[in-house]
Amino acid sequence: MDINRIIRVDMSTGSVSEEEAPERYRLLGGRALTAQMLLDETDARVHPLAPDARLFIAPGLLGGTSVTTSGRTSFGFKSPLTGGTKEANVGGQLGHRLARLGVKAIVVSGASQDGWQRLDIDKDGARLSSADDLGGKSNYELHRELVGEAVNSRAAATIGPAGEHRMASASVAVTDPEGRPTRHAARGGPGAVMGAKGLKAIVVSDEGAPRVVPGERKDAFRQEGVKFSKVVLDDPRTHNLSKTGTAGVVKFVNRENVQSMPTRNHRKGSWELADGISGQEIDRLGQERGGKMLPCMAGCIIKCAILYNDAAGQHVTTALEFETIALLGSNCEIGPADAVAELDRMCDDIGLDTIEVGNAIGVAMEAGVLSWGDFEGAKGLLEEIREGTPLGRIVGNGTAHVAKTYGIDRVPVVKGQGLPAWEPRTLKGMGITYSTSPQGADHTAGMVTARGATPETLMKQSRHEQLVMMAIDSVGVCQFSNALPGDMATFISNRFDLDYEDEQVLKMARAGIEAEREFNRRAGFDSSDDRLPGWLHEEALELPDGPSIFDIDYELVDKVWAE
Amino acid sequence: MDINRIIRVDMSTGSVSEEEAPERYRLLGGRALTAQMLLDETDARVHPLAPDARLFIAPGLLGGTSVTTSGRTSFGFKSPLTGGTKEANVGGQLGHRLARLGVKAIVVSGASQDGWQRLDIDKDGARLSSADDLGGKSNYELHRELVGEAVNSRAAATIGPAGEHRMASASVAVTDPEGRPTRHAARGGPGAVMGAKGLKAIVVSDEGAPRVVPGERKDAFRQEGVKFSKVVLDDPRTHNLSKTGTAGVVKFVNRENVQSMPTRNHRKGSWELADGISGQEIDRLGQERGGKMLPCMAGCIIKCAILYNDAAGQHVTTALEFETIALLGSNCEIGPADAVAELDRMCDDIGLDTIEVGNAIGVAMEAGVLSWGDFEGAKGLLEEIREGTPLGRIVGNGTAHVAKTYGIDRVPVVKGQGLPAWEPRTLKGMGITYSTSPQGADHTAGMVTARGATPETLMKQSRHEQLVMMAIDSVGVCQFSNALPGDMATFISNRFDLDYEDEQVLKMARAGIEAEREFNRRAGFDSSDDRLPGWLHEEALELPDGPSIFDIDYELVDKVWAE
Repeated sequence: MDINRIIRVDMSTGSVSEEEAPERYRLLGGRALTAQMLLDETDARVHPLAPDARLFIAPGLLGGTSVTTSGRTSFGFKSPLTGGTKEANVGGQLGHRLARLGVKAIVVSGASQDGWQRLDIDKDGARLSSADDLGGKSNYELHRELVGEAVNSRAAATIGPAGEHRMASASVAVTDPEGRPTRHAARGGPGAVMGAKGLKAIVVSDEGAPRVVPGERKDAFRQEGVKFSKVVLDDPRTHNLSKTGTAGVVKFVNRENVQSMPTRNHRKGSWELADGISGQEIDRLGQERGGKMLPCMAGCIIKCAILYNDAAGQHVTTALEFETIALLGSNCEIGPADAVAELDRMCDDIGLDTIEVGNAIGVAMEAGVLSWGDFEGAKGLLEEIREGTPLGRIVGNGTAHVAKTYGIDRVPVVKGQGLPAWEPRTLKGMGITYSTSPQGADHTAGMVTARGATPETLMKQSRHEQLVMMAIDSVGVCQFSNALPGDMATFISNRFDLDYEDEQVLKMARAGIEAEREFNRRAGFDSSDDRLPGWLHEEALELPDGPSIFDIDYELVDKVWAE
Repeated sequence: MDINRIIRVDMSTGSVSEEEAPERYRLLGGRALTAQMLLDETDARVHPLAPDARLFIAPGLLGGTSVTTSGRTSFGFKSPLTGGTKEANVGGQLGHRLARLGVKAIVVSGASQDGWQRLDIDKDGARLSSADDLGGKSNYELHRELVGEAVNSRAAATIGPAGEHRMASASVAVTDPEGRPTRHAARGGPGAVMGAKGLKAIVVSDEGAPRVVPGERKDAFRQEGVKFSKVVLDDPRTHNLSKTGTAGVVKFVNRENVQSMPTRNHRKGSWELADGISGQEIDRLGQERGGKMLPCMAGCIIKCAILYNDAAGQHVTTALEFETIALLGSNCEIGPADAVAELDRMCDDIGLDTIEVGNAIGVAMEAGVLSWGDFEGAKGLLEEIREGTPLGRIVGNGTAHVAKTYGIDRVPVVKGQGLPAWEPRTLKGMGITYSTSPQGADHTAGMVTARGATPETLMKQSRHEQLVMMAIDSVGVCQFSNALPGDMATFISNRFDLDYEDEQVLKMARAGIEAEREFNRRAGFDSSDDRLPGWLHEEALELPDGPSIFDIDYELVDKVWAE
């Protein structure tokens, strides 16, 4: 079947309509599609929470197929956090179900005049209805209620209280294969945009929907899929992820010659208690407590999601990620793993980006609102976010907002978005990516962890990785599949009956990046926004071979997209 | 004597040094000087509250002379509110005293490592010393303590609790001729910058300092001064100001065919209870209660400052201005005059920009934090600002900050600064000024209240008035003197022994504006920032002759500085 339905939801009038995707969008999916539609359909100067702002939701180009990890979903919007283009993509069960229903994109515009609404999509169509009964509910309760036992055919995308409060760090939670709200389109505030539209939940059921069967080359497609799965399974990176998840890197990055474990609001790069929040420690606890490694969507063979139980063997959280551990853990000097797992559970429940909130709490600690390492205080802040108290709103609106509120001039953000764990003073390629990505500080925009390379090489690597990530986010597979442009070209060729080469994949990616950059330009960004905060150039981290700052010349950095 | 001392205060080291002003600054004063120095000495990308940021304080070119109203003082800095260039100027007793001590500018850099500090300047020099005894004090207490009986030789510039909390709406309070802290360099957060530097107070005594005697043309200078005073006194605008202050316009602008009295967060342009907060009503009350009209500095013959007493004849506030009445009054639907006067007193005491805080409270009312017209609630918010509670910090950081915190998309700001009363939907020339002034929404940047003129004419008027205001703010006289470029050229010629023409005054003004624009460009601003918020183009005010929005083409608006 063709995946070419564009579902338009006008929240102001309550009307839902449908149209066929235009030909020019045929070979766009996921991030490239939402970026292009955002540019095509939205005035870049619109307030991100205004009725005229729009939210675009799209599975990737390979959504609904059997390619492993290919069920990711992109949320594209103007970010209330950065004021620029934003795409946050997420695993979970949503993407494949949308694709199997033939949905290429959902476009949500307007704002409800009539309380909270839900959008249901199934084989019979798409419908809006009142969801006042869902208002005020948090994500765990919501997904139990909206998906529950129907976990094999349904998936929900919901906002928790943070999204209802229209906070800039609010996420959209997507159902995982066990029916829990542990997958989040987190960065840049998609939950706030959905909240401003009055849309509390999207519930998708693919019961009775056809499988996505590729066209004439379906056999080749299937064979390539099997071959690719073997490559992924043989990759030692997969082995590590399958055992200790992304948390497996903690010990490595905490070493004194890496120092990429943000500590005490990024004042240090390693934490003396980091072993207690490491993947190895979590693995050890898991063996005692019935923890396990799970896929985030059906068909994923990597299974990097840590299911974390408490000492009594009761579920605490799933998908306890490195970034969460670093920002809510070491960055706030909070440990051990049980504490971080509880904060992660709360963030999932309230609907929050753990990277943004971890940074925000770090700045609040810097401002003296609570003490370093104050786990109970951090829980209290998250509860205040849930309640929407003044202090909760300060923290829930993100890192830069906390800093502004307390007059703090040392702010760990790029383009208004909180810094991920990967440290630009020691892994300088990450600084190039953070500076130049249209998304702001985002490690998934292009990982460059090489060290010792020349600045010129790092710049080129950053560009290449940013293009590859745009491609990966657009075909809709997971970055941990490590799909290469050639892999993607093969899948696209067999899926769409054409002959795509690496070059065309990278060209599509470049066009996607340029759509994002053009939106940012129209929104008022220029090269002066492609900069790291000043303290990253001044406050050195002490490595064994000397002090290290981010010192790559911005003339070189600016070449990332000038060439 | 020459006015050419530049006093440099390094708060980080506690050192104070002095240098002679370079020749290129000779014919710059006030706003033009601080704008140029800000551009020359500051990296435009610096965080406004960082130690590397600088605060520039300068009397105008005519400071210290006998020209009426010529004692204004400019505060120049990178604004924590707008993120761009900022100049806030203020009357009161500071400017003349600085000029009489030969001070052309004070430059404050760094940040105190040793608690609150004070800077004392007198005929013996300039000294920093500890001011921990002043920390936490509000402005009325501070000025009683720092100036007290010595009102004829001393003046202070202080921050209240809002500045200590580094809030973006924090002002610097300057002593009035009765020794009260009722004159404020208010807009854009100069108090926050001073607070971030750890500078609680500047105390200036000109006891024993020489008068500023112009050079060879001193007789001509004096004669022109007398002539100019006569012109000012004969001006009917002066008569109105001398009787009812700026509050005298309330009834006029509240009429249904003007609608420039912001009401209910700018949703309406007139308020049915506006007569109760009008200049005429305040005048009537003053006659019963011993109110009077005062000059804001020695030598001012206009005397537009309303001294407002309560029913018992006790002083409540001085300088109850139209903007204060409009933003804290009708915009929040708070009245009658006694209520607004009390809020004004609190703002002076805490050290707050009444325009910014009035807008911020209006948005808080919109967000449901308190009800329209809730005077006690508004007082409570101001007390929270004084205390620095989370809610107080939200409101004290200004209009856009409140909107962001509560996810409100209808925000009455330009370049992040709250809208003054003058309504761009009915007085469209004001919209051109708000859009294009490097200062953001600022009525004092160039008043254009003409109606019925063509857009082209309004655009040219806005440019001309913005240049004239730059000149006025640079020679350091009051806008209500209505000094023309020719008047200023005469004074400058006789003061500095040269032959200045209108043209040169306007050229100096244009250079000042360009210095401000260049700073903004370096800070990341472009023409997309020279825009009013969208709702001013969409929500019409209903005038007798039909609905009215701001509908001047931005292609035309952009011509203000393109020509």
